[in-house]
Amino acid sequence: MADLEVRALTFDVFGTVVDWRGSVIEEVERLGRSHGIDVDWESFADAWRAGYGPGMDRVRRGELPWTPLDGLHRLILDGLLDQYGLAGLTEPEIERLNRVWHRLKPWPDVTEGLQRLRQKYVTATLSNGNVALLVNLSKHAGLSWDCILSAELAMQYKPDLEVYQTAADLLGLSADAVMMVASHEFDLQAARRAGFKTAFVDRPQLIDSVGAEHTDDGDGFDIVVNDFVELADRLGA
Amino acid sequence: MADLEVRALTFDVFGTVVDWRGSVIEEVERLGRSHGIDVDWESFADAWRAGYGPGMDRVRRGELPWTPLDGLHRLILDGLLDQYGLAGLTEPEIERLNRVWHRLKPWPDVTEGLQRLRQKYVTATLSNGNVALLVNLSKHAGLSWDCILSAELAMQYKPDLEVYQTAADLLGLSADAVMMVASHEFDLQAARRAGFKTAFVDRPQLIDSVGAEHTDDGDGFDIVVNDFVELADRLGA
Repeated sequence: MADLEVRALTFDVFGTVVDWRGSVIEEVERLGRSHGIDVDWESFADAWRAGYGPGMDRVRRGELPWTPLDGLHRLILDGLLDQYGLAGLTEPEIERLNRVWHRLKPWPDVTEGLQRLRQKYVTATLSNGNVALLVNLSKHAGLSWDCILSAELAMQYKPDLEVYQTAADLLGLSADAVMMVASHEFDLQAARRAGFKTAFVDRPQLIDSVGAEHTDDGDGFDIVVNDFVELADRLGA
Repeated sequence: MADLEVRALTFDVFGTVVDWRGSVIEEVERLGRSHGIDVDWESFADAWRAGYGPGMDRVRRGELPWTPLDGLHRLILDGLLDQYGLAGLTEPEIERLNRVWHRLKPWPDVTEGLQRLRQKYVTATLSNGNVALLVNLSKHAGLSWDCILSAELAMQYKPDLEVYQTAADLLGLSADAVMMVASHEFDLQAARRAGFKTAFVDRPQLIDSVGAEHTDDGDGFDIVVNDFVELADRLGA
């Protein structure tokens, strides 16, 4: 890979940029304490996330119209309220809980790494999160991008190839001038099929039902790193 | 207007954020000197800009398919090459010239004003410029936004109302929680019809065939200011 050919980096967000699981657990534990609800919040967070793939599949099959991720999150959450003792929450409390996905915290290496990478490359999100979610999450986390790109702009979800193609088109770049950065192999495999270059960020601490596998051999990805600072080092940023 | 209700500011770019005319003239004068071409570059810049409205109308009438602004700029430019002594440029030189719109310079008040406004509000572009143009222009000018929004995402051009509605939808906000900031009255009039709040930035130094009128009475806009720093003052940012 001649890294000089790469003009833009597109970043997966949930798991790659932010610790979605730790952030959700921390906030629902606090919510539970304030409401006297004591359940297994790790199980709750994992169940919420586990509904995400099947939710997207319902859209893909046409059982649901196009639904931004905020809407899918809410559908899944509504199905979990009884089981996790949350049925007594008011509608504003439920809606606030649903927006915990707008308040996720970045991994500790992200702020420095992104700032350096942005000096050299166009940096953009490329997430299944909808635009509003990504805007609010980034603002809350103090992260700045050159562009917020989302599956919402293609009205498809990753790993459907249209999402990657739309992103490259909107950036005015050929696919091979864009590098996808992610901690999920399925995302990079799809990005590669769309013609992107690929950087795997190994986050072994990430437990994620959508598949954040540790990759021993790099699976042929162009770059394999442990965090965003190492990515900046490798890309000379 | 209760300004506390406003959550996001969307900014017109050409003329409002950047001095498109001065920037284009400066660059084509330099190009002309290096090629020994001496024509009226102000007239050239104005003719290029003047083709923009009719170009959009050709798309609206279905004579052209949806065309990002880079493509319209190129169509117009191709029609001016002979007249302005530029027919001898190579294809890479023409393409580089077409991308002068990615290298426009901000008015002197913009950097400070935007930085302050971004502390309090979600700030986004909302321009007929395509996403790549806005990303490159912002990076070149050192401007940071929470989100790049463009007419391209609605596949319509301002002042068509779909552009404003799409922007509010993508930000996850009702239209009346968004304030359009522009130096062209037609843009604000359309934004107001879409339900946006409006801020007119008076830039009397701006000569623009698309209509940057000095507004004496504010035309009922929510805020009328002379620059972005005053806008930050008025909005308490």
